[in-house]
Amino acid sequence: MHMNDLIRKKRDGNKLTEEEILAFVQGYTEGSIPDYQASALAMAIYFRGMDAKETAALTMAMANSGDRLTMPEMGVRADKHSTGGVGDKTTLIVAPIVAACGVKVPKMSGRGLGHTGGTTDKLSAIPGFRTDLSMKEIESIVQTCGLCIAGSSKELAPADKKLYALRDVTATVDSIPLIAASIMSKKFAAGAQNLVLDVKTGSGAFMKRSADAKSLAKAMVDIGTHEGLRVTALITNMDAPLGYAIGNTLEVIEAVQTLQGIGPEDLTQLCLHLAAQMLYLAGKGTQDECMEMAQHALYSGLALERLIWMVSAQGGDSSVITDTTLFRKSRCFRTVKARSDGFIRRIDAEKCGLAAMRLGAGRTTKDDEIDPAAGIVLDVKPGSEIHSGDRIATLFAERDDVFDGAVELLADAFEVSDVEPKPIPLIIDRISNVK
Amino acid sequence: MHMNDLIRKKRDGNKLTEEEILAFVQGYTEGSIPDYQASALAMAIYFRGMDAKETAALTMAMANSGDRLTMPEMGVRADKHSTGGVGDKTTLIVAPIVAACGVKVPKMSGRGLGHTGGTTDKLSAIPGFRTDLSMKEIESIVQTCGLCIAGSSKELAPADKKLYALRDVTATVDSIPLIAASIMSKKFAAGAQNLVLDVKTGSGAFMKRSADAKSLAKAMVDIGTHEGLRVTALITNMDAPLGYAIGNTLEVIEAVQTLQGIGPEDLTQLCLHLAAQMLYLAGKGTQDECMEMAQHALYSGLALERLIWMVSAQGGDSSVITDTTLFRKSRCFRTVKARSDGFIRRIDAEKCGLAAMRLGAGRTTKDDEIDPAAGIVLDVKPGSEIHSGDRIATLFAERDDVFDGAVELLADAFEVSDVEPKPIPLIIDRISNVK
Repeated sequence: MHMNDLIRKKRDGNKLTEEEILAFVQGYTEGSIPDYQASALAMAIYFRGMDAKETAALTMAMANSGDRLTMPEMGVRADKHSTGGVGDKTTLIVAPIVAACGVKVPKMSGRGLGHTGGTTDKLSAIPGFRTDLSMKEIESIVQTCGLCIAGSSKELAPADKKLYALRDVTATVDSIPLIAASIMSKKFAAGAQNLVLDVKTGSGAFMKRSADAKSLAKAMVDIGTHEGLRVTALITNMDAPLGYAIGNTLEVIEAVQTLQGIGPEDLTQLCLHLAAQMLYLAGKGTQDECMEMAQHALYSGLALERLIWMVSAQGGDSSVITDTTLFRKSRCFRTVKARSDGFIRRIDAEKCGLAAMRLGAGRTTKDDEIDPAAGIVLDVKPGSEIHSGDRIATLFAERDDVFDGAVELLADAFEVSDVEPKPIPLIIDRISNVK
Repeated sequence: MHMNDLIRKKRDGNKLTEEEILAFVQGYTEGSIPDYQASALAMAIYFRGMDAKETAALTMAMANSGDRLTMPEMGVRADKHSTGGVGDKTTLIVAPIVAACGVKVPKMSGRGLGHTGGTTDKLSAIPGFRTDLSMKEIESIVQTCGLCIAGSSKELAPADKKLYALRDVTATVDSIPLIAASIMSKKFAAGAQNLVLDVKTGSGAFMKRSADAKSLAKAMVDIGTHEGLRVTALITNMDAPLGYAIGNTLEVIEAVQTLQGIGPEDLTQLCLHLAAQMLYLAGKGTQDECMEMAQHALYSGLALERLIWMVSAQGGDSSVITDTTLFRKSRCFRTVKARSDGFIRRIDAEKCGLAAMRLGAGRTTKDDEIDPAAGIVLDVKPGSEIHSGDRIATLFAERDDVFDGAVELLADAFEVSDVEPKPIPLIIDRISNVK
């Protein structure tokens, strides 16, 4: 079938066959199908959608477009993926917990772009830490430490990389089947076995509305069902930042505190739930038993020990983990004070993320350099009672001239109310293909 | 505004401003906006449409993307455009009629592609005839003969040429605002003053349904209204081929016969109506008076005289017009016979066009060579009574081996019925911005 006819077929609301989708993905990856036809098809998919079968076919075609890891000798393993949020350092906590419970976690992570951070950027704040590992190195580190967090290889799902870059400049990112296939193709290519998805919703997430987050979660669980992968998605709240710290070094420090049992309540609870779901998928017991195992791994310090092992194994200076005061600090800081009395009603996560970006904590374009020490530490959460003049946040940066714009943005993120707001649940829903 | 945001704006159903549309057309023409963003925008327009103001802005931005002819010294002139049909040789008849009535017709015509023919291809069947004329030559020929039919210059509306080529391979041709803007941009660039549109509908037309043809006609008349151009559209039937002849030489011969007053009834009537509408827009009298003028120009032989002048002025051998038996003939022919008694209920124009293409009369790709002598002469019209064994069509080609496929296709075009079918009106509607 000619690509023009294939585009027309989708444009007219018909379903594409597995063969047609495969021919498109192969042709696009090898370059025989040009960008201008791929973007027209992506826009037709934006309007017409794809059913579960088409989405699964697109996922697998992209997963098979490059190398596929199988890791046959690794034993039972689990993976997690977050759709991206502000202050989301869960991987640094969850992966050690799960590893400490005897389930292997070979994790491929991405870099951050825009207002959301990426796990490999956070880990790169640790002096010497390497994320560009070969498959051999990853396997060996997982065998020793039980976990490894590496950057995603260029050879994994190259079709997804090429298509995502195109969608990013043709207003075709916000399509649930395309997002679902993009995420899941990378997971299949990386050899996922038991997958927990943290699908975020709220102002700091890509899915602002929880109905969209549920649709995306359902699409991804459906792909798993179609392809025989055990998948659980938790729909979680990303209206306010997770924890108090935003920025790479600051988030590593908060992750370490959480693994010491003294982390923020929301972050700790979310990590325990994600870890328990991973253990449950991996067959370690009932959901309650898995939660108890996760709690034990966290509060016993066993999980923190795993993180320290992993940092050393990946070339990092683990002394900054055992004593986080050794991290290099920012040269400048600025505080934000409350301007009235009342209760914090909302902290807009997206505005916090954008403010942190201005400070140097994130990238505007993919070639931007990150300042690991830059970022924000909040003093409050939604529901906190404040009085005029109270410090509500501290901003850190290398240069003084970036503060003005960032402070303004951040001050704007806080909404204050006279009455105590109703707490918003952190975990909104669970969608799974495992009972 | 970034192109990605502009695509998103249209994707989300918002209206683009004149400035945004101009920025897109300019950026795309000069190459700073890539094909893949233009095709995504075209697909978004396919789904979301454009209102009259947006369509007019797109038209004028494309019209202004290259040279614009003004012809200030030419005096009152009129133009016509057909959306393309099978056996459509009306320009060869209408332009001489209008010129003979004292209204100038400087006409830019296109080449044929697919199953519909192009006027410059038909004229190229005349030995020596040149359609690649400079603007100076066109003006001088129009001053002498009253008319000139030239190929469209590459410098006219280059944005439209580039965008059309892209739409053709991204399933974004069938969008009424995009079609309307494409046609009208070329007309504005070519300096149109009084424009009659022949919007065809039926099996042989691009608009199969008359409701779509009416929407397209309305969109084009609206552009005219918006930009101060007098426009009349006739919606005409293209279910069966126009006249009896399909193929370049064969159509020139039929046009000459029509100008001799002995042409097919449907072709003659359509040409008189189109000519009368052009004369009416040009202010030559009431609609009835204009029809009488057109009839006089045709039946007096004055229009044929104009055609002969034009052929000579454009370097053609006019002896083939005064004696059409001098045209080179095809080496081979084949006849199609009726297989039953009854009435011709339908002759599928698209199938006739495709059969003629197989014989060498048209192009499959834009670099194909055309055989001027190849084509089809029908013996019947919808409504004709036939008996088994009657000849219903003759096919002409240079080589014997092309007949089998073509005969099969053509035989398939005829539908025979026991009862005499109701005649279908040739002119279905008139839409105009001139009372």
